[in-house]
Amino acid sequence: MFDPVEKLKEYIRQPSVSADPAYADGMKGARELVGGLLRDIGLAVEYVPTPGHPVIVAKRDGDPAWPHVIIYGHYDVQPPDPLELWTTPPFDPVERDGRLWGRGTADNKGPLMAHIAGVGRLLESDPQLPLRLTFVVEGEEEVGSKHFKDFLREHRAKLAGADFVFLSDTGIPNADQMVITVGLRGMVCFEVELSNARMDLHSGMNGGVLLNPIQGLAELCASLHTPDGRVNIPGFYDDVIEVEQWERDQLVKLGLKEKDYAEFLGIERFHTPPGYTPFEAIRFLPTLEFNGFGGGYQGEGSKTVIPSKARVKISCRLVANQTPEKMKPIIFNAIRDRAPQGLKLKITDQHDAMPYVVIPPDRSNTPKDQPAVLARAFRATEKAVTEVWGKPPLYLREGGSVGLIADLKKELNLDAIMLGLFLPEDNLHAPNESFKLSLLHKGIDTVQRILRAVARG
Amino acid sequence: MFDPVEKLKEYIRQPSVSADPAYADGMKGARELVGGLLRDIGLAVEYVPTPGHPVIVAKRDGDPAWPHVIIYGHYDVQPPDPLELWTTPPFDPVERDGRLWGRGTADNKGPLMAHIAGVGRLLESDPQLPLRLTFVVEGEEEVGSKHFKDFLREHRAKLAGADFVFLSDTGIPNADQMVITVGLRGMVCFEVELSNARMDLHSGMNGGVLLNPIQGLAELCASLHTPDGRVNIPGFYDDVIEVEQWERDQLVKLGLKEKDYAEFLGIERFHTPPGYTPFEAIRFLPTLEFNGFGGGYQGEGSKTVIPSKARVKISCRLVANQTPEKMKPIIFNAIRDRAPQGLKLKITDQHDAMPYVVIPPDRSNTPKDQPAVLARAFRATEKAVTEVWGKPPLYLREGGSVGLIADLKKELNLDAIMLGLFLPEDNLHAPNESFKLSLLHKGIDTVQRILRAVARG
Repeated sequence: MFDPVEKLKEYIRQPSVSADPAYADGMKGARELVGGLLRDIGLAVEYVPTPGHPVIVAKRDGDPAWPHVIIYGHYDVQPPDPLELWTTPPFDPVERDGRLWGRGTADNKGPLMAHIAGVGRLLESDPQLPLRLTFVVEGEEEVGSKHFKDFLREHRAKLAGADFVFLSDTGIPNADQMVITVGLRGMVCFEVELSNARMDLHSGMNGGVLLNPIQGLAELCASLHTPDGRVNIPGFYDDVIEVEQWERDQLVKLGLKEKDYAEFLGIERFHTPPGYTPFEAIRFLPTLEFNGFGGGYQGEGSKTVIPSKARVKISCRLVANQTPEKMKPIIFNAIRDRAPQGLKLKITDQHDAMPYVVIPPDRSNTPKDQPAVLARAFRATEKAVTEVWGKPPLYLREGGSVGLIADLKKELNLDAIMLGLFLPEDNLHAPNESFKLSLLHKGIDTVQRILRAVARG
Repeated sequence: MFDPVEKLKEYIRQPSVSADPAYADGMKGARELVGGLLRDIGLAVEYVPTPGHPVIVAKRDGDPAWPHVIIYGHYDVQPPDPLELWTTPPFDPVERDGRLWGRGTADNKGPLMAHIAGVGRLLESDPQLPLRLTFVVEGEEEVGSKHFKDFLREHRAKLAGADFVFLSDTGIPNADQMVITVGLRGMVCFEVELSNARMDLHSGMNGGVLLNPIQGLAELCASLHTPDGRVNIPGFYDDVIEVEQWERDQLVKLGLKEKDYAEFLGIERFHTPPGYTPFEAIRFLPTLEFNGFGGGYQGEGSKTVIPSKARVKISCRLVANQTPEKMKPIIFNAIRDRAPQGLKLKITDQHDAMPYVVIPPDRSNTPKDQPAVLARAFRATEKAVTEVWGKPPLYLREGGSVGLIADLKKELNLDAIMLGLFLPEDNLHAPNESFKLSLLHKGIDTVQRILRAVARG
């Protein structure tokens, strides 16, 4: 089979920046390199067009009774700017200190290479493996996977009958501790505008006679939390699933220290709802955060104006089992109720994502019915990780939102096994991105073990 | 004497925009035109340098026993942009519909011309008039009179022994109703910043663990007013002088209608503290207004960030007898007390102005000792206005702040008689500025009558 490190270098040399049309050649080059590798290891490759960058779909068909695994990855990378901060050029990969340096090494070219090479080695050693595989490698993850949901809907047939999704596009705290991400928060994003007079007013000529929209909006915003850090909206927490002790225990094993986290953030104190550590609050609780507030004059010095309007951008992170459909009316109605009388209120719904959670078998006190192949895959993952890393993985939810995981769950009802391969120091989305090559090799080994066990039990 | 309309046209042709160095020739031309006129009517003219534009000082000396009146005006104008909205060019004055059109016709070249021509005619008809006069015509009123206070301090001797200041740089509601402005609000401007984490944070990775500075600032701002529209700071109203019935009566005579005002503003309802109409609140009550609030992402769409800081710009209008020196600690201490614990607070003091009030004689229930010449000038003003306009003036406080009036009071202990000459429809600071020529002529007449009576009783 091909040399995964050499092929990864070749892959990095294709500057596949999806956000910038100037990199169209790099996108094509990266796509064809991945397609070529997948063809080389025996899969049938197709480039499925979308209104944006095509999706690579590569299949190994077989007996419908065989398990069917979808492997997800993306071939696009973040823009490399600012270029002057790179020690070596972003698209000219260099090996140094056991790492490969270059844009996309960690996000997501290195981890995807672990899956391609893992599958390649597995099929080389076991050509009769009773396993169906579908690689789905998109080209728009770094621009919000904007056509991915439509792709899933339109090409449902290509993905029919799959048992779970397998991917490596999450992180681990250090090279010695594997983490399987088992939950992501969902999201509701919207903007609230309050307006009053038809134009900005002179605060001397008119100050003191009308409600200033900044004041009205500040009062509205101030009503949305209680002093102890909870969201002050009736029903906001109703659907939140209770955290189980095993989840808290997993976090304790992660060994994070509040003091270190506070120092990293540069804050004097945390502000989490009672009963939750900061590490728990990030993962297990929904939030209502103000992402931007703007109104009136914001330049240098002063301008004595009463603005005609003020706006706030709000995002709510949701956790299982909340849904944007149910939460939006709860949140919007509270805002409508509390908006000061006499001001004009406008709520602009922006976008949202479902939260995601999957409970690994043998963990929950209240186990759910789980497809047999998924349960087998989780058990295979625990065994493989324990063999390769010397200790079992941790199963953790994360605070962020990954829309495509929620989309795969919603559109195809598929759960995901997220095998983390990048590290905090890998500089994702920043200059001097790199990927630890020992994790590439461990990843290749682990992928083979997991898929072999899924296929052969 | 010169023809005041022709000279005003010549004066308008000098584009004296103080804000833009490209108009240096226009500033010089306007200055020399005013200086020339003042010399022509018999005054000794001097251009007093400042770090910015020079101040024209023109004196008629005499027996120290004679009353001494300072006449204030400014020779600079607002920039004419946007030029495309002018019907006729801003610096090419045109007479039409009984008005002179052009930049500065109303603010302040026309009204100042009424004073120059009034004094000219008076001295022509009564060369032995026992009156000392000092014109002080500054060139930086439209850029905040930034060197005027220093000018007053450094050239105190030139203005020593004056009895009052006479000027026309205020407005009247219609051409038939003279208003003497007897009060202006003062001001305290400052900025409040709250910050927390050392950088903007991802609202997924970190949302729900720390107090968002936008939230902290919204809660702080929301604490500063009561629901009934008062400022919620202990001691905020302690020094406010009680409104007397005659002042409320004057406002009633002005005949403004709340419905019209609400329509003009485009608001659904007023929000004034109990016991005050909107017209009273503007004039008689202090305020705390939010002029600008900024934090986080304010562009299109959404960005799920927790900003590291948020800022609000606040201005408080003050009324007699409040002082910035006493109010600032009261306001700043309330903000310090209420700033959420754990966030870093920064208050930046920007600038302030004293409020101003003068009680015309025979009005107050509790008359103050007033210099005899000032009292005589007020009585002369009432008589002259009644003769020229056919009815007495109204004495009204205004909601705005005019720093130079407060400066003249503070530095020289001089009160002002503010004879209004411009109209709401004159388009001050806007395209198509104009000045009603009948008010120029009435102004010239009134100025003569007032000054003759001040001099001769």
